[in-house]
Amino acid sequence: MARATRERILEASSELFRHQGFAGTGVKQIVAEASAPFGSIYHFFPGGKEQLGEEVIRSSGALYGQLIELFFTPGCDPVAATRAFFAGAAQTLIETGYADACPIATVALEVSSTSEPMREACAEVFESWISATAERLREAGLGRARSRSLAISMLCSLEGAFVLARAQRSTEPLAAAGAAAAAGVRDALAAGRAARRRRPHSAQ
Amino acid sequence: MARATRERILEASSELFRHQGFAGTGVKQIVAEASAPFGSIYHFFPGGKEQLGEEVIRSSGALYGQLIELFFTPGCDPVAATRAFFAGAAQTLIETGYADACPIATVALEVSSTSEPMREACAEVFESWISATAERLREAGLGRARSRSLAISMLCSLEGAFVLARAQRSTEPLAAAGAAAAAGVRDALAAGRAARRRRPHSAQ
Repeated sequence: MARATRERILEASSELFRHQGFAGTGVKQIVAEASAPFGSIYHFFPGGKEQLGEEVIRSSGALYGQLIELFFTPGCDPVAATRAFFAGAAQTLIETGYADACPIATVALEVSSTSEPMREACAEVFESWISATAERLREAGLGRARSRSLAISMLCSLEGAFVLARAQRSTEPLAAAGAAAAAGVRDALAAGRAARRRRPHSAQ
Repeated sequence: MARATRERILEASSELFRHQGFAGTGVKQIVAEASAPFGSIYHFFPGGKEQLGEEVIRSSGALYGQLIELFFTPGCDPVAATRAFFAGAAQTLIETGYADACPIATVALEVSSTSEPMREACAEVFESWISATAERLREAGLGRARSRSLAISMLCSLEGAFVLARAQRSTEPLAAAGAAAAAGVRDALAAGRAARRRRPHSAQ
């Protein structure tokens, strides 16, 4: 039961933070949404709202990481996976009235200059997403540095598309950014294959 | 003097909102930073903090639009302009301790699901930046639809890179996203030139 209450607080906070931000969400609203007693926040999160924020970033970041791994599976075609991921994100935005996008971006922008523990949690989550995607690009034949920079630029495209799509209430940014990201992956893989044909025995 | 106070309130708010968000910034902090009397906010912005927010989005959005136009000048090389813009943004982040990035993105994510007037102001600002960049791409020889989608994907890359760079306190995301964006522009221009060579008398 205690476990359930803690989970409900984390889930309600995650939803509220991604829709309206960290500062704009009050503890009262969180306990109301979570059907939890007011004091339970400080029972489960003795460090208060900042500790709750940090845990929400890590837990919702891990969940979203699992979503990324559902698309970017071992042995997948990274071009098709990129297209499908952006298309799925657009569909989710439509279905949620342009509310559900990145689970941590709103908080990341709010706290990057004001809370070191929360900023670090965001940085670690972004890093985990980059590593997971870069790993798939490596398996598809790209060198380590190229895989990393491509994974970063894909994530930047996605995060920025979420900012624009939510403000413009349109999936056009996800379509444009998704097409550009998929083209970037396609070209990088083609360049990698061409380099391997030229130098069949050397790494890229 | 009244004009000066109003401007100081707008400038202080713009700075505070971009660093710590809209909800995280109190009216007391704004008047203190602006050296303005407390009541002056409601004198100049009778609609209160939401009206102030809307005006800050429009005014800081217009200023940033001028910055975009400093890089993407009529007749510029859009590839070089893209590289220079991302490099300049990285430099600004370093110089400001990773605080100064997009003037409206933090607020955009916070208010997109909670304030229609502020969301609409953000949407209009993003649209103005897209139009200005697309115009330069048109002049460089791209078709209307291609210019627009490319301008959108460039802006998405930049906005997402700001999210990651501020959280990670690193310019790596701007370097990766900037290189990908410049490559996208280069390839689009090359494809446009190739299409014009094949069909010299038809539009792309």
